[in-house]
Amino acid sequence: MCSEQVGRIISAADVSASFRDALKEKINRKQYDVKLVGYLANNDPSAEKYAEVTARSCREVGINFELRRINREHLEDTLLAANEDDDIHGIMVYYPIFGGGHDQYLQNCVSPYKDVEGLCHTYRFNMYHNIRSLDKANTLKCIIPCTPLAIIKILEYMEVYDREKPYGNQLFGRTITIINRSEVVGRPLAALLANDGAKIYSVDVKDTLEFKKDINKQKHVVADCDLKLADVLPLSDVVISGVPSKEYKISTESLKPGVVAINFSSFKNFEDNIADKAAMYCSAIGKVTVAMLQRNLLRLREYQMKNPYLPELKFY
Amino acid sequence: MCSEQVGRIISAADVSASFRDALKEKINRKQYDVKLVGYLANNDPSAEKYAEVTARSCREVGINFELRRINREHLEDTLLAANEDDDIHGIMVYYPIFGGGHDQYLQNCVSPYKDVEGLCHTYRFNMYHNIRSLDKANTLKCIIPCTPLAIIKILEYMEVYDREKPYGNQLFGRTITIINRSEVVGRPLAALLANDGAKIYSVDVKDTLEFKKDINKQKHVVADCDLKLADVLPLSDVVISGVPSKEYKISTESLKPGVVAINFSSFKNFEDNIADKAAMYCSAIGKVTVAMLQRNLLRLREYQMKNPYLPELKFY
Repeated sequence: MCSEQVGRIISAADVSASFRDALKEKINRKQYDVKLVGYLANNDPSAEKYAEVTARSCREVGINFELRRINREHLEDTLLAANEDDDIHGIMVYYPIFGGGHDQYLQNCVSPYKDVEGLCHTYRFNMYHNIRSLDKANTLKCIIPCTPLAIIKILEYMEVYDREKPYGNQLFGRTITIINRSEVVGRPLAALLANDGAKIYSVDVKDTLEFKKDINKQKHVVADCDLKLADVLPLSDVVISGVPSKEYKISTESLKPGVVAINFSSFKNFEDNIADKAAMYCSAIGKVTVAMLQRNLLRLREYQMKNPYLPELKFY
Repeated sequence: MCSEQVGRIISAADVSASFRDALKEKINRKQYDVKLVGYLANNDPSAEKYAEVTARSCREVGINFELRRINREHLEDTLLAANEDDDIHGIMVYYPIFGGGHDQYLQNCVSPYKDVEGLCHTYRFNMYHNIRSLDKANTLKCIIPCTPLAIIKILEYMEVYDREKPYGNQLFGRTITIINRSEVVGRPLAALLANDGAKIYSVDVKDTLEFKKDINKQKHVVADCDLKLADVLPLSDVVISGVPSKEYKISTESLKPGVVAINFSSFKNFEDNIADKAAMYCSAIGKVTVAMLQRNLLRLREYQMKNPYLPELKFY
């Protein structure tokens, strides 16, 4: 416990502050209404709580957030109506509702021009293929899912991104382990960081995969990897963990001295002594995630103002 | 066991015969190449076996079937290349590969103009919304997933569809129980049969839902239902079951005399004495499913010949 190195604790509130100020200033200056509707079709108390946090945060920056409770069997038609409703600028849905494939189907029913969470196929596809805009003129940047985007913004704040390097390659030379390969956070995050030049070890209970950038393809490629978590942790400059378990702990001993550690699980995946070994540590990212949701919303609000000059979008 | 009523056994070979003859005749008459590529990216022996059956059946009707074995990490890019390859007329993929949401993402990477299985979002969406064509001129009928389509064709063969009634309402007055609510068969089947006018009880381990047609919306609506399987079986003119369990059996006693029974599980969900009570019984549907795959392929082959006059498809 008597390490000389004491890591900087990075708080989500600090990271999100500049984004929130910028959002507030922009809404104030532009004097436009911005309305976000959250659809609650389950009886999940944690969704209710997240909705309260979102509502309060939106009030503070000047966004009109409305929570609408709805029977799950009416949700699909309601989403389609919301896509066409000019008074609604952003749509979010509290998942899980039916679970599994039915929920993913619903995610694809939200128009890319209202999808603040970036979960529809258009955005997923573009993300994996490192296509950064909806249009060729590059005026409509793609929406990135809020949680992976929050982690990127935290890495930028921590200066893990090297701004001296060219855009799209600012993580070149970094080795990053991500423990979680969910479709909502772990896999998209691995792809995004690899597309920015990092070498990623993506670890889940079954296996390890390696994501890295293919310069010829200008996007990441994925390969099977024989290394285990214990092998990749000492090699990693950054370790990002999102294991939804109270018991799960990454042993501080296994980490490289000076590591950068980010936890996005609602449980603490790192041990209490992590700051003794890490150069920087962020234990919770929720506030940055909400700021990214709001940032995505404002971006889409601006796109909607270009209507009727928006391109029709292909199925992918 | 001494019932006077003895049900007709309906064999999938009989139902598929006329479709296979029609396919063979068409391919012969039109003299075109038709190539279906199946991508095998898992090591699943049952997928290998299904591929063999498909290959043999395709040879018999004059379709060129090719099985391509591929590393799962290369599948996505391979599918995108196949979408653009004029020598490939239909694409099928042996799932599961990664499982869950990643597989559904891959289904959405197949072009609707090559998607013989009808699993991409465009077709799913149109199916649930009772939109029967890709174009307004109604020249490009939507592809229906093979297994639900096979069950519809079996019901037509059994004359459960009443051809005296108008198209789109030929199941009016029928009560049908479907035991299975998977995204691949049970839920789409419930929607399709309700869109054709039937009242559906969709039963799974958790609950029962009722699907029925809303005449004003010209599509089905879904409502929660308090009835249990034991309540709905005696009310049902047709019982369709797909429970993937050797132990699961529907008691013949619980069924309405003269019921129509269809099993699409690879295990027999009905008891051995089912034919004593049922008017008609079909114990396995596989051959009809393969015929529908081939029928979808030929339909898409014809669409591709309209290129470059095919409409670009929206994201849904």
